[in-house]
Amino acid sequence: MKQHSYYNQEIHGNYELISIGDFELAEGGKIPNLELAVRTLGTLNAEKSNAILITTWFSGTSKIMEDVYVGKGRAIDPDKYFVVIVNQIGNGLSTSPWNADESIIRSKFPFVRIEDDVKAQYKLLTEHFGINKLELVVGGSMGAQQTYEWAVRFPDFMKRAAPIAGYAKNTDHDFFLARTLMDTLTFDPAFKDGEYNSIESMKSALSRHGDIWNVIGYSTEMWRKELYKNLQFPDANTFSETFTQAYFQPMDPNTLLRCAWKWQRGDVSRNTNGDLRAALGKIKCKLYCMPIDEDMFFRLADCKAEQEMIPNSEWKPIKDDWGHLGLFGLNPEYVKQVDEILGELLSLDL
Amino acid sequence: MKQHSYYNQEIHGNYELISIGDFELAEGGKIPNLELAVRTLGTLNAEKSNAILITTWFSGTSKIMEDVYVGKGRAIDPDKYFVVIVNQIGNGLSTSPWNADESIIRSKFPFVRIEDDVKAQYKLLTEHFGINKLELVVGGSMGAQQTYEWAVRFPDFMKRAAPIAGYAKNTDHDFFLARTLMDTLTFDPAFKDGEYNSIESMKSALSRHGDIWNVIGYSTEMWRKELYKNLQFPDANTFSETFTQAYFQPMDPNTLLRCAWKWQRGDVSRNTNGDLRAALGKIKCKLYCMPIDEDMFFRLADCKAEQEMIPNSEWKPIKDDWGHLGLFGLNPEYVKQVDEILGELLSLDL
Repeated sequence: MKQHSYYNQEIHGNYELISIGDFELAEGGKIPNLELAVRTLGTLNAEKSNAILITTWFSGTSKIMEDVYVGKGRAIDPDKYFVVIVNQIGNGLSTSPWNADESIIRSKFPFVRIEDDVKAQYKLLTEHFGINKLELVVGGSMGAQQTYEWAVRFPDFMKRAAPIAGYAKNTDHDFFLARTLMDTLTFDPAFKDGEYNSIESMKSALSRHGDIWNVIGYSTEMWRKELYKNLQFPDANTFSETFTQAYFQPMDPNTLLRCAWKWQRGDVSRNTNGDLRAALGKIKCKLYCMPIDEDMFFRLADCKAEQEMIPNSEWKPIKDDWGHLGLFGLNPEYVKQVDEILGELLSLDL
Repeated sequence: MKQHSYYNQEIHGNYELISIGDFELAEGGKIPNLELAVRTLGTLNAEKSNAILITTWFSGTSKIMEDVYVGKGRAIDPDKYFVVIVNQIGNGLSTSPWNADESIIRSKFPFVRIEDDVKAQYKLLTEHFGINKLELVVGGSMGAQQTYEWAVRFPDFMKRAAPIAGYAKNTDHDFFLARTLMDTLTFDPAFKDGEYNSIESMKSALSRHGDIWNVIGYSTEMWRKELYKNLQFPDANTFSETFTQAYFQPMDPNTLLRCAWKWQRGDVSRNTNGDLRAALGKIKCKLYCMPIDEDMFFRLADCKAEQEMIPNSEWKPIKDDWGHLGLFGLNPEYVKQVDEILGELLSLDL
């Protein structure tokens, strides 16, 4: 079995690799023996009616979702719910460019779409766990893309959905942003069309990948208010280098690139021949739209335009000067707001 | 005399090269025979009391300032005012990496600060034109940096100042943004530490430089509302390639890099040992602070924090969904607002 210095259980906590067999992809091609890295917490009740699905974001894994969004006494309480956190395809833990079958390894890894993740998760939930109804689907950023796709594609499968800081249909702006992130990796001479010699050889490129997150991942309010000092970083440069850059430095570029490609193309209107209003109109569950007010690329106004097309939805913005990466729970007030909003949603008698 | 395919009068309109002699720089070193490219419009009156100084922004020249901000019947009317537009040091028209003395050519070009520009402009105005008082100093972005520096360094020299979409003290966020822009150029294998073979060899890097402007230079509102269609671009990709990327492709990377270095370090508090409040407290003229509401990197809240420290200032935000590059006058409503605000400022009896 292949080992990775970063994508392992020592760093990312416990998870189970569950095969859902050979998996055909929307873009063509297939992943032989697709394994999903799945973290579960709590116990599935006899009726199989207490499950919550949590999805993951770009560069994230089940670890941060568990750490920030789940806990005893929290809204998502494993004493009450059976929590299933599924690592997205190609995120480093599930089948990914570094650990895939030789036929699709590294630069040969196929292009995966958000809808592939949702179909794979559907197969996992129904066939492996025997679950046919979810109490809640929730995820942030690319996890929100998956959440929207779930609600549109399988509208009878969940009672509630909570997309946090993400779009149902990705914007042109977001597409261009992801491209600049990808370019930091692909235009580095060490990249060699995805056949780089080592992660170490890509360290400079990965640092510059982090530099773009410094600009767009937080917010100008965070920088002006120097909120990194709350996390014991003495100044902006130290925070930039030892937090943002360092976060990306151990990651696998092919993994980031395939996920960024997926992020760029998230679009529920693929279910309805490009008609976004028709797609969002298919949603039946109660949906809380939870953008972050200072997010610089999943903006309030863009999220609001989508939420207004969703029949049974409510507008639940989160205040956080950290911006998009407030998703990491860097601010205790963020965590508190998420718990309040999700707690309210879960308390609805549906 | 050296010729350049982009930095010439055919493309950038008429200007005069005016030498202000050898020029010592704040960072050490000097520019032998510093020539400022100066565009003047209108006539200086006998009392030399009707002059307006216009400064230039990153990548911009006197041409766009003339086209967008000056005109008969406009607030800045050459029938009434003697308008002096000074191209910033190192912007391609004034003494710059490509046309400088052999001792400081290309990668050897020294580091220039905003305060150097202001001192050079002071010398130009006083010694060459014999002007000792300005009706107005106005500029956008890096031109706003120069405007603030003017008001702090020479507080008795102008009656009015109008910094548009820029900071008196650059922010950490802005510093990191400029770094990502610089990295697109310096990490390209063709860059060769500033000794690239040709501009053409840097075309890919310059396109990626433009790509970052696509993300941060406009606004998410512009992309969602597809405002580029008002300019006859059919879709986002065409606009990105034939407007944003194409704009930067003919430019000289060393020129962009030295200007970006300067932009990163704009800071009027260098006049007062790092005390920004003390620096801004020195301003005596009437100052209108004119940020753009959807600007993604010279943000309203950051501009407001500065404006509140300026004694004789007023808050005059401009509404423009184009964001920062609204400065280009892409929206007629922007031009109208600028004229209204500057017209009001110039009408004050001071």
